[in-house]
Amino acid sequence: MKPWEKNIRKVVPYVPGEQPKGDRLIKLNTNENPYPPAPGVEKALREMDADLFRKYPDPASSLLVDVLAEQYGVGKDQVFVGVGSDDVIGMAFLTFFNGEEPILFPDVSYSFYPVWAELFHIPFETPAVDEDFKIRKEDYYRKNGGIIFPNPNAPTGLELGLMEVEDILRHNQDVVVIVDEAYVDFGGHSALALLPRYENLLVVQTFSKSRSMAGMRIGYGIGSPRLIQALQDVRYSYNSYTMNRPSQILGAEAVKDKVYFRQTLDKIIKTREETKDWMGKMGFSFPDSKANFLFATHERVPAKTIFQALKKEQIYVRYFDTPRLEDYLRITIGTDAEMEALRRFLEAFL
Amino acid sequence: MKPWEKNIRKVVPYVPGEQPKGDRLIKLNTNENPYPPAPGVEKALREMDADLFRKYPDPASSLLVDVLAEQYGVGKDQVFVGVGSDDVIGMAFLTFFNGEEPILFPDVSYSFYPVWAELFHIPFETPAVDEDFKIRKEDYYRKNGGIIFPNPNAPTGLELGLMEVEDILRHNQDVVVIVDEAYVDFGGHSALALLPRYENLLVVQTFSKSRSMAGMRIGYGIGSPRLIQALQDVRYSYNSYTMNRPSQILGAEAVKDKVYFRQTLDKIIKTREETKDWMGKMGFSFPDSKANFLFATHERVPAKTIFQALKKEQIYVRYFDTPRLEDYLRITIGTDAEMEALRRFLEAFL
Repeated sequence: MKPWEKNIRKVVPYVPGEQPKGDRLIKLNTNENPYPPAPGVEKALREMDADLFRKYPDPASSLLVDVLAEQYGVGKDQVFVGVGSDDVIGMAFLTFFNGEEPILFPDVSYSFYPVWAELFHIPFETPAVDEDFKIRKEDYYRKNGGIIFPNPNAPTGLELGLMEVEDILRHNQDVVVIVDEAYVDFGGHSALALLPRYENLLVVQTFSKSRSMAGMRIGYGIGSPRLIQALQDVRYSYNSYTMNRPSQILGAEAVKDKVYFRQTLDKIIKTREETKDWMGKMGFSFPDSKANFLFATHERVPAKTIFQALKKEQIYVRYFDTPRLEDYLRITIGTDAEMEALRRFLEAFL
Repeated sequence: MKPWEKNIRKVVPYVPGEQPKGDRLIKLNTNENPYPPAPGVEKALREMDADLFRKYPDPASSLLVDVLAEQYGVGKDQVFVGVGSDDVIGMAFLTFFNGEEPILFPDVSYSFYPVWAELFHIPFETPAVDEDFKIRKEDYYRKNGGIIFPNPNAPTGLELGLMEVEDILRHNQDVVVIVDEAYVDFGGHSALALLPRYENLLVVQTFSKSRSMAGMRIGYGIGSPRLIQALQDVRYSYNSYTMNRPSQILGAEAVKDKVYFRQTLDKIIKTREETKDWMGKMGFSFPDSKANFLFATHERVPAKTIFQALKKEQIYVRYFDTPRLEDYLRITIGTDAEMEALRRFLEAFL
């Protein structure tokens, strides 16, 4: 090791999920939306002026912040936008989790949480979800440096009821509590309803799933003005101009079209419920997902075997080779045609 | 103060430069390029497929990394891309500056360096540039935790010769040395030439100035594979998908057009030298800038007075109300027409 290597921050390199390329493949492994963004996005893209790229974007991303504030009925000073919800949550870890006590998040949840905690040297503990993968709210009624959990949870798709979320908040008013709602639009109930009562609550959502904009990298957090101000201060101390012009312009268009948004969600929810139905009949079981994926295990055939067989067929789903999850596949809800291709293959294979 | 506020990271909120809006104003305050991006950028924008936005972008940004590697004649494993050079440098601070010793950078340089250092709790010292604003290389021949300096320097525009840069490197092989070359394309000499000899050197450049793409937020670092790997590991531990699809696609187009790039640079350099000429005759003096701005002081009229008079005329330049800089204006080189408007006003005003 060279002397200069001694000062390098130690991290366990995170390996991003597989992004296979090709036209014929069916990609059900990263919870992307199978439908294109709202038509207004395409229109705004066609009208975008490349000459403007020479100028810095608005550091406050006002265009986008304003439509989000209007959409969710909150003040403009209650909205923080970032380069995907990963940027928002990473920044929130850096901003809010500077105490001595460990932060808490479920053992089964978004795999990035421990990565951020280790990156920023934040102590953490991971209370185990129960045998049905449910978060036990009582596990969070103890001294801690902050709390974060996805709701609906990933990769299970299970929702924690809004009253239970509030129970956790009621027991934790001295730390920041982050509810990561990447999948909430597919049938969950948002903690945004609790904002008026909890100044220490940050609700994080994303354009990557329900708004079909994973490629644009847009996420946002909504909370009390004091909370958002603290996040802004840290962000401006890292990078003043995080969100580029196309993201600001096209992101705003995606929010404006409420009818298309609702239609897309309804289609995905319908396909999800139909998929639950035929998969159940085929011998699969799964938690009752409120997200755009199913977390499924088969009564007879190991998940890994199915995963590998599907991959050979160019059907990509997500397999986690870790304790508690190794019997399960996380399958994104695609179009009806994609799910039908999956069904036909599984029928033949099982 | 609420209990949860105690764990908030303390920062001195950085205030980004003014981004005035309006059609008639002349914006010479943030060192943007007065010319549009390469024609290929516009063409690729017109052909961009909005449907693809639903998918995550390539986490490795290969499209962009590949053209940069080709452009600079380095390996693909020697290029790191980020959301503007601020993201690259911020990530580099987090990755490389974890020692006990203070890092070093000039007292007069990019105002973000102390902000990053404070954000990440990195000790730092700032050796003073000399009375002509020159960096004294000998100041960097002592024990430290890392070194960073812009070259050409900001806001002075002064270049440190390549041999002096190498002297600093030769004396500092046990820490990471970052040369921030945001302005190098306007007549500086890049430390890229030194890469084969120094595995601990990171050269950072940006698309915001010379490539007319401030609005797209693209920066990059070039260094040894070991250095780049360390940066990648930390980045993947923060956010796997930082660079959105449009930035990857349009950024690559900007690099491909070498003829347009050279033409744009030549125009700006010509305008800069002409501006030096008439400003000198008008009683201004300035370090010999190799950047796309001049750092000018007037023999008689205080900088602040000129700054305010220009602002009233809707001509925006940058004024730093801080010791050592308070007698100077930083004036971006705009189009010939913009500089002519500036000249006419100053002629009448002084």
